[in-house]
Amino acid sequence: MTPTITAFANSPDRGAGLSRDMRVRWALEEVGQPYDVRLVSFRQMKEPAHLARQPFGQIPTYEEGDLVLFETGAIILHIAERHPHLLPDDPDARARAISWMFAAVGTVEPPILELQTARFAEGQESWTEQRLPQVKDRIRVRLGQLALRLGDSDWLDGAFSAADIMMVHVLLRLKPSGLLDEFANLAAYCARAQARSAYQRAFAAQLAVAQAAAR
Amino acid sequence: MTPTITAFANSPDRGAGLSRDMRVRWALEEVGQPYDVRLVSFRQMKEPAHLARQPFGQIPTYEEGDLVLFETGAIILHIAERHPHLLPDDPDARARAISWMFAAVGTVEPPILELQTARFAEGQESWTEQRLPQVKDRIRVRLGQLALRLGDSDWLDGAFSAADIMMVHVLLRLKPSGLLDEFANLAAYCARAQARSAYQRAFAAQLAVAQAAAR
Repeated sequence: MTPTITAFANSPDRGAGLSRDMRVRWALEEVGQPYDVRLVSFRQMKEPAHLARQPFGQIPTYEEGDLVLFETGAIILHIAERHPHLLPDDPDARARAISWMFAAVGTVEPPILELQTARFAEGQESWTEQRLPQVKDRIRVRLGQLALRLGDSDWLDGAFSAADIMMVHVLLRLKPSGLLDEFANLAAYCARAQARSAYQRAFAAQLAVAQAAAR
Repeated sequence: MTPTITAFANSPDRGAGLSRDMRVRWALEEVGQPYDVRLVSFRQMKEPAHLARQPFGQIPTYEEGDLVLFETGAIILHIAERHPHLLPDDPDARARAISWMFAAVGTVEPPILELQTARFAEGQESWTEQRLPQVKDRIRVRLGQLALRLGDSDWLDGAFSAADIMMVHVLLRLKPSGLLDEFANLAAYCARAQARSAYQRAFAAQLAVAQAAAR
């Protein structure tokens, strides 16, 4: 059964690959699972039909027959349970990879979201320029800890896994800020992931949506 | 094999049950699994021995023989895979519960963490008083969406599950702010969870640590 995901009809990043549908597209490309995409406008995202799928009015969602999922971590975990190679077979290694999936969205992403909020929602506020250095320093703390753990490993824990999809995509959201490039091994980690053919196919697919919307 | 978790030797909340070890204690009590606790000081949390278990210098961690896990979502998912009743048996219902586990830490908690940061890390800054209403309004958006979905259901999706442990504990962090009480069904949802005997045993266990530390 071909799953259907939702994505922005008009992505705020204009196809830079920073929207969260990118994570799910990438995972589906890694396992070779074709998928359909339903594009939703900002207005549609707040309407009951979409809220029934995604209570917080966000993208992506994942539909497979009667099953409807939200949250990229849960969607990718579901894909990983139905296809080989996204998570280790060894139960302990698999549980550790899931630790990293939760760490990506629960520990590394929150200070990065704070930077986005400071720049956009609070961009015109009187305090924002003065406040930004603190916001960035809190991100640097997390990046420093992650860089220390990654060291010169290729991936977070052994072979490439769903954990790397989640973490790399969270880190890529920092690309425009320049913060990622302060940590050479993290920048190289992201570049290594972006060189994967599955990443590139997913990136091209979301870029094509943005380019069609811009016409 | 009895697992070992880590918890604060001196919890910043003095036993109010808001530290993240509470989630894991609660899940272990729900399934009737005894556990050991290793208390760590703030200094120890930043030392190599703890960072080897928890790359971000936080608590809790979970050790079971050679397996070391971090992130409450991953730890509770691991417990749920080894014990009945924490997640539904039906694969679709299980996947939906995992969506909610990720939503708790990835979507609902980040604006709540922002409030904590505003109050503590930025508590003395000139902009904080003026900025707090915006921070609180962003939390209200999430709570409103969650309240709409929960409606008059007892739990997030069918029977009580690991999803409710994660979500309730994230929401309880708002208790001191008064925001939770603006949403009657969410306040009742948390109260319903807190009335569970497993919650109460977990709460008593973490409170005993705080009381011993205060002596």
